[in-house]
Amino acid sequence: MKIICSKSNLVKGVGIVSKAVPSKTTMPILECILIDASMNVIKLTANDMELGIETRIEGEILEHGIIALNAKIFSEIVRKLPDNDVVIEVGADNQTLITCEKAKFTIAAQSGEDFSYLPAIEKEDSITISEFTLKEVIRQTIFSIADNDTNKMMSGELFEIHDNLLKVVSLDGHRISIRNIELKNSYGSRKVIVPGKTLQEISKIIGGESEAEVEISFTQNHVVFEFGNTLVVSRLIEGEYFRIDQMLSSDYETKVTVNKRELLDCIDRATLLIKEGDKKPIIINIADGSMELKIKSQIGSMDEEIIISKEGRDLLIGFNPKFLIDALRVIEDEQVDLYFMNAKAPCFIKDEQQSYIYLILPVNFNAVA
Amino acid sequence: MKIICSKSNLVKGVGIVSKAVPSKTTMPILECILIDASMNVIKLTANDMELGIETRIEGEILEHGIIALNAKIFSEIVRKLPDNDVVIEVGADNQTLITCEKAKFTIAAQSGEDFSYLPAIEKEDSITISEFTLKEVIRQTIFSIADNDTNKMMSGELFEIHDNLLKVVSLDGHRISIRNIELKNSYGSRKVIVPGKTLQEISKIIGGESEAEVEISFTQNHVVFEFGNTLVVSRLIEGEYFRIDQMLSSDYETKVTVNKRELLDCIDRATLLIKEGDKKPIIINIADGSMELKIKSQIGSMDEEIIISKEGRDLLIGFNPKFLIDALRVIEDEQVDLYFMNAKAPCFIKDEQQSYIYLILPVNFNAVA
Repeated sequence: MKIICSKSNLVKGVGIVSKAVPSKTTMPILECILIDASMNVIKLTANDMELGIETRIEGEILEHGIIALNAKIFSEIVRKLPDNDVVIEVGADNQTLITCEKAKFTIAAQSGEDFSYLPAIEKEDSITISEFTLKEVIRQTIFSIADNDTNKMMSGELFEIHDNLLKVVSLDGHRISIRNIELKNSYGSRKVIVPGKTLQEISKIIGGESEAEVEISFTQNHVVFEFGNTLVVSRLIEGEYFRIDQMLSSDYETKVTVNKRELLDCIDRATLLIKEGDKKPIIINIADGSMELKIKSQIGSMDEEIIISKEGRDLLIGFNPKFLIDALRVIEDEQVDLYFMNAKAPCFIKDEQQSYIYLILPVNFNAVA
Repeated sequence: MKIICSKSNLVKGVGIVSKAVPSKTTMPILECILIDASMNVIKLTANDMELGIETRIEGEILEHGIIALNAKIFSEIVRKLPDNDVVIEVGADNQTLITCEKAKFTIAAQSGEDFSYLPAIEKEDSITISEFTLKEVIRQTIFSIADNDTNKMMSGELFEIHDNLLKVVSLDGHRISIRNIELKNSYGSRKVIVPGKTLQEISKIIGGESEAEVEISFTQNHVVFEFGNTLVVSRLIEGEYFRIDQMLSSDYETKVTVNKRELLDCIDRATLLIKEGDKKPIIINIADGSMELKIKSQIGSMDEEIIISKEGRDLLIGFNPKFLIDALRVIEDEQVDLYFMNAKAPCFIKDEQQSYIYLILPVNFNAVA
């Protein structure tokens, strides 16, 4: 194999596919990026068997072939080369020569034959969404997936399509995040669970422009994201997602409307007093016209009053401050509405159209302290 | 004690003095910042017994007094407060109330009486230098102090004043960095060894403007840096510094002139192939008109040719690439001159006026490999 591409194209391509290179593996071939110039395009591929990414880069093929290069070394070399054309040439024993201007690197590579190609996907049905919207919806929900693997289902997000509506849901046992998005077209009904890791990597790769589009296709076991020159293939999580509808309720005893920034800043300040791993709740005392937030730890105590408008009963309720912060951070509205039933029932933060619903369970606290 | 200052003044002041708060100590009082409002100014002080920093901040004193607050907690609270006036008030048992708008923090503090004040310094003689020059000269020499304490002297830098010249020297047994600076005025001769840590912290605090000035005063055991509202007092390292003059030589057998950027980028690329802790040298083969740089490790090999102009003999010599990189990074000149005697003798990188001299010892290498 012998190819020529510009350094900038290589850097970009390697940056994209590297997201699918596992950080730890016992199989050295998985730590590689495959350069495939066997046909008339140059394709870079990485694949950790759950998630695979392939991207086409521009360049000239002087000799067809394939080679698998260690992703870490290859990407470091490419990044530090002068800003000019790079020649990659495979010699005897897969020794690979990377030349740019007068710099010559020789590294040992592995045969491309050993590399696991991405699964061939026959796209059954697909939806279209803008890069911007996809990136946003991931950011607005990804924080409430469970970060351990004890419940596989909780490590993914539900993507539910019905007519022209996409509903994205994540939950971790303490809270639920829901976003409802209107699509440009209508589609058949479909429910899949996409691994959180796939969504995290996708959101790093896509540009986030509102004009650029992503095509998302589903098969029995896979989801495929296509955008620009790039193809991301991921396994789906098998099984049926939690029935969240029965956890949602529109009844409430107390409704609070508050400036989002003020509430967020106040809770953020309060967390200063909590050391990591310390489970001190923030206590919220809701009264007419104002609500008092209090926290107390070994380090010290804080209390602050925020002006609100309130409907319904007074309430004293405690929360893990991190859960409130996570939800408030991804809401763009200047004012937010919080709905409460009682001190044992979940709080809902949602807008009128229910484009977002954040459900957060309260925590017990010692009212005397 | 009760004082009012703006959040921004507090943040700035706390940021400055925090540099003298030790990261680890068995004495809780050293982890504190002293707020001293006993006289008619508000002073913040931190002191780790080697290095002490004091800064005055603007504000209003409603009740005189002093208090010592844990630096980490205090600075985190202050940073997260709303951007408005902050009231700090000491109550019973040194419980300290920090109020800003509707936010109220209460933290336990320590009596200011337990705090070790900065040593009272009678300034004997002092020099004046711009913030910019001081910051630069520290950056240009600090990398070659020894980072362990086996030789105390090597963990500091020599500041030698003679007439209107300031010479700053650091060395670690493998290399020497020397900068000669012309001062605006002439001073009596003086030689002191300033701890590297002091210089590192100073260079983080000073603004680096060429108009702003720093007054540096010396006493028998201390050095004092005064700039703006801030005073930094540090112990000096006792003893006589190494006699470096006898290590410097102006003889050479080979002189190379090379584009600094090209040389630096080439060595930088080569280090990709070296894992941390791996002591592979870069081998330089100097010939007429060009020099070849080679490195070989388990990961792979690199070679690159650079165009040079050369006087004197051909030479094959090896270096720790990091030492070359460190020196080249802080030289501003577009072209640099390298002087060599033989493969066992140090290389000198210096300009004609000797405003900088970097001496680097070569390393042995296996010429066959």
